[in-house]
Amino acid sequence: MAEPLPDLIEEFVSDSPNDDPAAILSALSSQDDVYIASLLESLPVERRLAVWEGIPRSRKLAVLVEMRSDPREILIDATLDDEWAAILADIDAEDLLELLDSLPSRLVDLAYAELDAQQQKYFREATQFDDDEVGHWLSHQLLVLPLNAKVREGLRLIRRNVPAHCDTVFLVNRSGQYSAAVKLTRLFGAPEHLALVELTEENMPMLKGTDECTTASLQVQRSGYVSLPVVDDNNKLLGRLDITSACELINEFYERQVMASAGMDEDEDLFSPVAKSAKNRALWLGINLLTAFLASWFIGLFETTLQQVVALAVLMPVVASMGGIAGSQTLTLIVRGLALGQVTKANLKALMVKELKVGGLNGLIWALVIGIVAFYWFSDPLLGLVICFAILANIVAAALSGVFIPVLLDKLKIDPALSGSVILTTVTDIVGFVAFLGLGTLFLL
Amino acid sequence: MAEPLPDLIEEFVSDSPNDDPAAILSALSSQDDVYIASLLESLPVERRLAVWEGIPRSRKLAVLVEMRSDPREILIDATLDDEWAAILADIDAEDLLELLDSLPSRLVDLAYAELDAQQQKYFREATQFDDDEVGHWLSHQLLVLPLNAKVREGLRLIRRNVPAHCDTVFLVNRSGQYSAAVKLTRLFGAPEHLALVELTEENMPMLKGTDECTTASLQVQRSGYVSLPVVDDNNKLLGRLDITSACELINEFYERQVMASAGMDEDEDLFSPVAKSAKNRALWLGINLLTAFLASWFIGLFETTLQQVVALAVLMPVVASMGGIAGSQTLTLIVRGLALGQVTKANLKALMVKELKVGGLNGLIWALVIGIVAFYWFSDPLLGLVICFAILANIVAAALSGVFIPVLLDKLKIDPALSGSVILTTVTDIVGFVAFLGLGTLFLL
Repeated sequence: MAEPLPDLIEEFVSDSPNDDPAAILSALSSQDDVYIASLLESLPVERRLAVWEGIPRSRKLAVLVEMRSDPREILIDATLDDEWAAILADIDAEDLLELLDSLPSRLVDLAYAELDAQQQKYFREATQFDDDEVGHWLSHQLLVLPLNAKVREGLRLIRRNVPAHCDTVFLVNRSGQYSAAVKLTRLFGAPEHLALVELTEENMPMLKGTDECTTASLQVQRSGYVSLPVVDDNNKLLGRLDITSACELINEFYERQVMASAGMDEDEDLFSPVAKSAKNRALWLGINLLTAFLASWFIGLFETTLQQVVALAVLMPVVASMGGIAGSQTLTLIVRGLALGQVTKANLKALMVKELKVGGLNGLIWALVIGIVAFYWFSDPLLGLVICFAILANIVAAALSGVFIPVLLDKLKIDPALSGSVILTTVTDIVGFVAFLGLGTLFLL
Repeated sequence: MAEPLPDLIEEFVSDSPNDDPAAILSALSSQDDVYIASLLESLPVERRLAVWEGIPRSRKLAVLVEMRSDPREILIDATLDDEWAAILADIDAEDLLELLDSLPSRLVDLAYAELDAQQQKYFREATQFDDDEVGHWLSHQLLVLPLNAKVREGLRLIRRNVPAHCDTVFLVNRSGQYSAAVKLTRLFGAPEHLALVELTEENMPMLKGTDECTTASLQVQRSGYVSLPVVDDNNKLLGRLDITSACELINEFYERQVMASAGMDEDEDLFSPVAKSAKNRALWLGINLLTAFLASWFIGLFETTLQQVVALAVLMPVVASMGGIAGSQTLTLIVRGLALGQVTKANLKALMVKELKVGGLNGLIWALVIGIVAFYWFSDPLLGLVICFAILANIVAAALSGVFIPVLLDKLKIDPALSGSVILTTVTDIVGFVAFLGLGTLFLL
């Protein structure tokens, strides 16, 4: 049984860790590759490199394949040139595709040369698809038979070797075009001379190499099959997408969403070098700084008002916060809907109306609460009225922006999970400050 | 082939939709249950109910099972009492567990009465586990044989029926304790009289009913098997967790993270009734309002300063924004690490040091940039110096809080994905405002 990850981490980050390769080897020999990959990601760089040293060369490739790019690149950079021939000796097209973005080009060439002609063909085929297309992430370990094959040939094929996560034999015609699939379990007890076409699955979906990864992966997940065939535009069988790859692609999709909300990507390393990490994040801070300065500039338009009614300055964070929070709720809902294909032109108007009503209702309630608090706090009924209307306006604007900004970004092919929140906050900040300070200028001076 | 979801949505939300049940039936008959569930979630309530009417009773249960709770409950509430007997006629323990939180108790009783004795036993067993434990979400469609069974009996079992997503036969002893598993594909061509124990898998992991769902699901996903056996404390075989359920549990885990960042849950309905949606979100707005008032209160301590140096009021959003953004980057990274088990006591100190360095470096750079901009904008070198130090202090405080807040919440068993950001923003707002206005009071008055 696998030791829980935290315990394993503890073992390798103690004050006086045992860096003897033999000790590392024995601690890790019973762990699977994914586990070791996750352990390495969890270690500070210096410890990560020490443990990496202790991993046998024969496992290093499999472990690298399972890691996120950023932590992986640190290990790749630290691996000596004379080790690579051994590490890459058994690489196949799928592994190379997985490592493609992390390996320097001389190592890509080295690895490519290690592939046999068939694997090189798979590799070239896959690189013709973008990395958000299914064709890039295929498995080529297939059970394939000609369309006229009989159960006997099916059984012979299975007895030789069944790849992991494979529950069907694919039938192709003479030109290699996909025709149908037969479940392996249907071969048990079927007469040996029966034609396989008599046993094919009726409603098994088929994917195209150009299908978008997340959508296709969800299709595999709910198909009831362990993998689905993938074909090219001419219906030629390219490979299959199995459920483990589908799960990984979906996990990555979600991680991208989570990390994007803070302007990072899913490959961000817990322990990346300080300079690299600072650089990765600096851009996001810079973009947000520009929008903050923009908000400041709008506030600056009301300097005279602020000087005379300092309570406005005190209450500014309340206006900004309520708009930002209400907007991000709508935004999050819409971004998820867009990602799942549930938000479309057809239901957009209805969504807008609903979000406006929700915003209006919550806006009214909280505007009243805040107005009353402000009135008592500063003993100024007019101030209460001013903040009341500013909050209402801001929450309604937030609802509108929360729907429109992600839909617009999606249309422009910009990831709304990444840039939605910064644009939204800019809008709600400016609307909030201008409404609040503008009304303040009109009624409180 | 399935029609793309957006096209299907369009068909049902057009200006004059065809609500004839026969038309709905024909449009949906070629779609799978997950697809129809997703379509229903994408429709405004009125349209959703009209389409629901057109779905044949025999499919309604399967569709409900695939829906999120919130949109599902709307359909359950709208379904007439005399329909339920037909809908629940074929329910099994797994379906009932899935619907448990959405069904009113009289319908739970009705459904429970429909189960046969075996299914009722499964249901009772499952409800003894929390819904974040694997034991709650088991599949009971198993291939099980006694420990002394031979290949012949294995083949006989398989020929009868192999459940979906099942690639192994489980072997149990006389007391029903799990012993080992045999891959179905190993039975092809094996001699009929061979004992199955000769063919068992060496390193197949085993789950406990009390294992946490996400961890266990990840284990299934990377095991290389299509499902793993689940046992109780006495090693008795309870059922199995298959890879489709594992994928769904992981999807839910990620959706929870994404939605939690805006104070919502993964069951939130795109088109929930306005009152319900407003209520769901009001709490989050209220909590954030309290923290915003707290920030205001701190600002209020510096009213005199603000009155005299109005530039401070103008620049406040910049200080708050930089701290909030820097903090949320650290927070997001740590929350993911905690969820994956990659952040532990052992590497916490190293993480802290790294985040402080990243924060220090980015703090320095941006503090200088902002200081210079402020200096030129307001032609006041002292103001530039004040905001420079305030930003530096705030970004460093943000890095510290970004690590400590989620770790502390996790220790207290509070979901850091939900409450982390609101607490963090409170800290960075207050630190930022107090540092900025405090330094302003000291140096600018």
